[in-house]
Amino acid sequence: MPDKFKKIGLIGRSRHHNALETVQSLVQLMEARGLDISIEKGLSKLLGEATAHIITRDDIGADCDLVIVVGGDGSMLSAARAMSMHKVPVLGVNRGRLGFLTDISPEDIEVRVGAVLDGDYTRERRFLLDVEVTRGGQSIGRADALNDVVVNSGTSARMIEFDLYIDDTFVYRQRADGLIISTPTGSTAYALSGGGPIMHPALDAIVLVPMFPQTLSSRPIVIDGNSRIRMDIPQDTRIHPPVTCDGQVNLSAHPGDSVHIHKKPEELILIHPPGHSFYASCRDKLRWGHSLVN
Amino acid sequence: MPDKFKKIGLIGRSRHHNALETVQSLVQLMEARGLDISIEKGLSKLLGEATAHIITRDDIGADCDLVIVVGGDGSMLSAARAMSMHKVPVLGVNRGRLGFLTDISPEDIEVRVGAVLDGDYTRERRFLLDVEVTRGGQSIGRADALNDVVVNSGTSARMIEFDLYIDDTFVYRQRADGLIISTPTGSTAYALSGGGPIMHPALDAIVLVPMFPQTLSSRPIVIDGNSRIRMDIPQDTRIHPPVTCDGQVNLSAHPGDSVHIHKKPEELILIHPPGHSFYASCRDKLRWGHSLVN
Amino acid sequence: MPDKFKKIGLIGRSRHHNALETVQSLVQLMEARGLDISIEKGLSKLLGEATAHIITRDDIGADCDLVIVVGGDGSMLSAARAMSMHKVPVLGVNRGRLGFLTDISPEDIEVRVGAVLDGDYTRERRFLLDVEVTRGGQSIGRADALNDVVVNSGTSARMIEFDLYIDDTFVYRQRADGLIISTPTGSTAYALSGGGPIMHPALDAIVLVPMFPQTLSSRPIVIDGNSRIRMDIPQDTRIHPPVTCDGQVNLSAHPGDSVHIHKKPEELILIHPPGHSFYASCRDKLRWGHSLVN
Amino acid sequence: MPDKFKKIGLIGRSRHHNALETVQSLVQLMEARGLDISIEKGLSKLLGEATAHIITRDDIGADCDLVIVVGGDGSMLSAARAMSMHKVPVLGVNRGRLGFLTDISPEDIEVRVGAVLDGDYTRERRFLLDVEVTRGGQSIGRADALNDVVVNSGTSARMIEFDLYIDDTFVYRQRADGLIISTPTGSTAYALSGGGPIMHPALDAIVLVPMFPQTLSSRPIVIDGNSRIRMDIPQDTRIHPPVTCDGQVNLSAHPGDSVHIHKKPEELILIHPPGHSFYASCRDKLRWGHSLVN
Repeated sequence: MPDKFKKIGLIGRSRHHNALETVQSLVQLMEARGLDISIEKGLSKLLGEATAHIITRDDIGADCDLVIVVGGDGSMLSAARAMSMHKVPVLGVNRGRLGFLTDISPEDIEVRVGAVLDGDYTRERRFLLDVEVTRGGQSIGRADALNDVVVNSGTSARMIEFDLYIDDTFVYRQRADGLIISTPTGSTAYALSGGGPIMHPALDAIVLVPMFPQTLSSRPIVIDGNSRIRMDIPQDTRIHPPVTCDGQVNLSAHPGDSVHIHKKPEELILIHPPGHSFYASCRDKLRWGHSLVN
Repeated sequence: MPDKFKKIGLIGRSRHHNALETVQSLVQLMEARGLDISIEKGLSKLLGEATAHIITRDDIGADCDLVIVVGGDGSMLSAARAMSMHKVPVLGVNRGRLGFLTDISPEDIEVRVGAVLDGDYTRERRFLLDVEVTRGGQSIGRADALNDVVVNSGTSARMIEFDLYIDDTFVYRQRADGLIISTPTGSTAYALSGGGPIMHPALDAIVLVPMFPQTLSSRPIVIDGNSRIRMDIPQDTRIHPPVTCDGQVNLSAHPGDSVHIHKKPEELILIHPPGHSFYASCRDKLRWGHSLVN
Repeated sequence: MPDKFKKIGLIGRSRHHNALETVQSLVQLMEARGLDISIEKGLSKLLGEATAHIITRDDIGADCDLVIVVGGDGSMLSAARAMSMHKVPVLGVNRGRLGFLTDISPEDIEVRVGAVLDGDYTRERRFLLDVEVTRGGQSIGRADALNDVVVNSGTSARMIEFDLYIDDTFVYRQRADGLIISTPTGSTAYALSGGGPIMHPALDAIVLVPMFPQTLSSRPIVIDGNSRIRMDIPQDTRIHPPVTCDGQVNLSAHPGDSVHIHKKPEELILIHPPGHSFYASCRDKLRWGHSLVN
Repeated sequence: MPDKFKKIGLIGRSRHHNALETVQSLVQLMEARGLDISIEKGLSKLLGEATAHIITRDDIGADCDLVIVVGGDGSMLSAARAMSMHKVPVLGVNRGRLGFLTDISPEDIEVRVGAVLDGDYTRERRFLLDVEVTRGGQSIGRADALNDVVVNSGTSARMIEFDLYIDDTFVYRQRADGLIISTPTGSTAYALSGGGPIMHPALDAIVLVPMFPQTLSSRPIVIDGNSRIRMDIPQDTRIHPPVTCDGQVNLSAHPGDSVHIHKKPEELILIHPPGHSFYASCRDKLRWGHSLVN
């Protein structure tokens, strides 16, 4: 059985109507086990008083040996990016419907978070993407993503054109609405809507999904997770493509810039309660049991 | 054999390098037949002097009984929208690669435009879409499209949500990047990149293609060409979806607005030289002969 | 309000475990209204004695002015093909899950079949396909389909090659596993699994869906419902492609044969209880409300 | 620079019209370099007399340190499966159009095969799949595939149902026409027609592509190349699904059987002339440069 966690951090957003209840259950569970609890500032407003330290997200990352995130996949994505820097494992607790990253629902908190706190859990590694925009060889900005990086025209009714290189080998000049570069973690999110394959989370691979490509034979391409991807934006375009990481616009490329994407050295460590199965999540979220015929 | 055309208008863009040559060939062909020629202002700069009237596009529409458009599918789209108001038939001459709307290439001008001018041609009707945005029951803007209407978030990294109604029957609430509403003419353009079917130009139908829908079972829907489509934008969104017609942003909807799309009463009359075949265009443009295996 | 039905026929398969219950409810409903009831032989075994005529399916078609089909989409398909010959309207009652053709579930029989019997219903027309195989200009077999006609290699691991003509115009030579030719009714069945669009049942159109085509740019093609489709099987193949109608192999083509497909003159008249909506069926069957994100 | 090859074997099919020419060129190239040449029996008929040993394919595998295959992707697949057992590297020479596995065309033989014989080449490893059918725990047959394994109903108009397990974890019960299990090498072949992603040949992954699945949210799944896949065929089906390897039916499963698929220990070693690029093959074969718009 793996080590027990001793210093637990609590992260999340306080806006959801039953967040208070969820946070209180978690605090009770931890107090009952005499654990050291730290709570992120925003979330602490929910609690009157508690035997908990109220600290910043960054301090939680530095101090704790487990971080519990309360929220949907969105909260989880931002927490995951932050915690991967600190190498602190993360456990996701959902407030409503289950997500692919948050596999404990509020009614299961006692049993399933309890099990994790008692040392009954599995660890899973998920890699993140590093994205950098360069202009004339100089870096002009950097961001990271757990799910996906999207480079598109940023406006309605315009395509972008770019030259794609993988490990410095020319792939193609593409005219399209844009390109999705997704990790296995992101393969069940936006990339799936765009026609990309589902990739098992343990796979060391990246998928490139062209968005509305002009060439009908442009299909999703799956490449090694250690590949270095480069998109060269032509000089002669008037489009300044935004670079979107996990759904947030973080950077913007100019004509003549290059966008570089590759695996980050830091990984997210995801904690799962006993009985977790990726395929069970797929069956649930993608409703695999449901058939067209009766 | 159909009637011969007597008053011919010439429309197009002068920027392309071999536009001059193309326009000169066309003028010669018409002069040789003693036809009455009108040339759009912009294009007339190409010609030193010619036995042609230099008039506006609108006057060409009012005066001529055939309009020849020199350019790619983009020039054709804007000319077609304008000429449909005047019920003047349109013939497309390409400067470079063949398009779905312009089926005469520069080297075939003499034979194929010649045939048309000699009365050997077919007429085809193409319908256009009328799009109107209403706010509190009042119209706040109107536009038209020969290919497609796209309603999306207009920015990177954001989805829109909308309620779709067809002939006042609720279809679904959709979360997606947007929706493409395409005519048969547009079915081989943007809608095809988005996974829509090819529709024969004579079909009286409209296809709705969801863009990156959150629901994986959302598929393109083909409905009768006389259907009335309505997209209700929810009150509680912060997105102001732009409405794009044939690739040009023409309108913008606010939260609470409705976007109404239906067939225009005016049609485009497209002239084809003898031997035209839609499927031949598909074979050429979509490279249907080419196989994966050898 | 439309005419009331007076002579009702009951058709279906007796194998399903709750078929008896369903049939008894239907008989009660009709007896209570003093209607003339005929029951298909196979189904009559379920009933001890009843004030019903026990006759063949064909006689039901000839005698009745409404036929109620108890069963899934499969039973409905075969009943529909038979009844379209007699121009008798058909109402579908499901035993289990709802289908696209059978929109009354067992628990709704009293209310919804009752409403239909009381004259509160709508009629909808659905067209069928006629398929004929010819050899040297002679017909060697004929069949019909409400959903779809599939022409494929009939065996594992083999492609077929064929020349496709629509209204005697050459479309392409295709190498593929096969071709699905579907009505709007069939567009939510097998054709949908193959990537075809959903077509509204009232649309007068046919969709051609290539199965695993060698040419990546081969997409579903939607054509007018009155088109005449012809597939020429090359002389020099060793494949004898079976022709499958609504999931049943009915015919087999030889090298050199032609398969002709077009709309049948006879239509199916489908009866719907009040409140029927095609899009509501789609929302239910395709789970359109369910989203990837939470 | 890698080692030079000394004993070269020649394998292929003699039926193609310009096979003789191709084989003669190859023999000349090798004789000019004083290499030891062995020719497969079938192919040797093409040559009157030559300084070559005429031996079986198996002996070529045992004796040679390079095998040159003359033919299309089909010849290459069967040669590759045979040579992987002997660990002999393979070079593909096409007679007609280029394939993904045969990247030397007849007109380039002198330069490009010459370069390989002179020691200027790269090696690439491709894995194969092992497939085994078991009944009551006993193996009843085994086969291998370089491209793909297809398990389907084997007949027209029938679906199969199966339970899928990956590394003994239940994935789903699927109703579909079948399932394609493809290597990266096969990802540009049949799996691509079925909507699977392109996988870079160096990727250690397997893709599962459901064929016409009843569940619309069933998408291609990419898993680690070392995964063990199991398909359990239900007891209560009447279908005996054939198991097709690289397009040849090799095995047949009965109701109650299991089909096991995993990576073979032996790999194919593929030789490429200088300048080979997978993405260049894609650009050529998939016509990536060609755009819908003009």
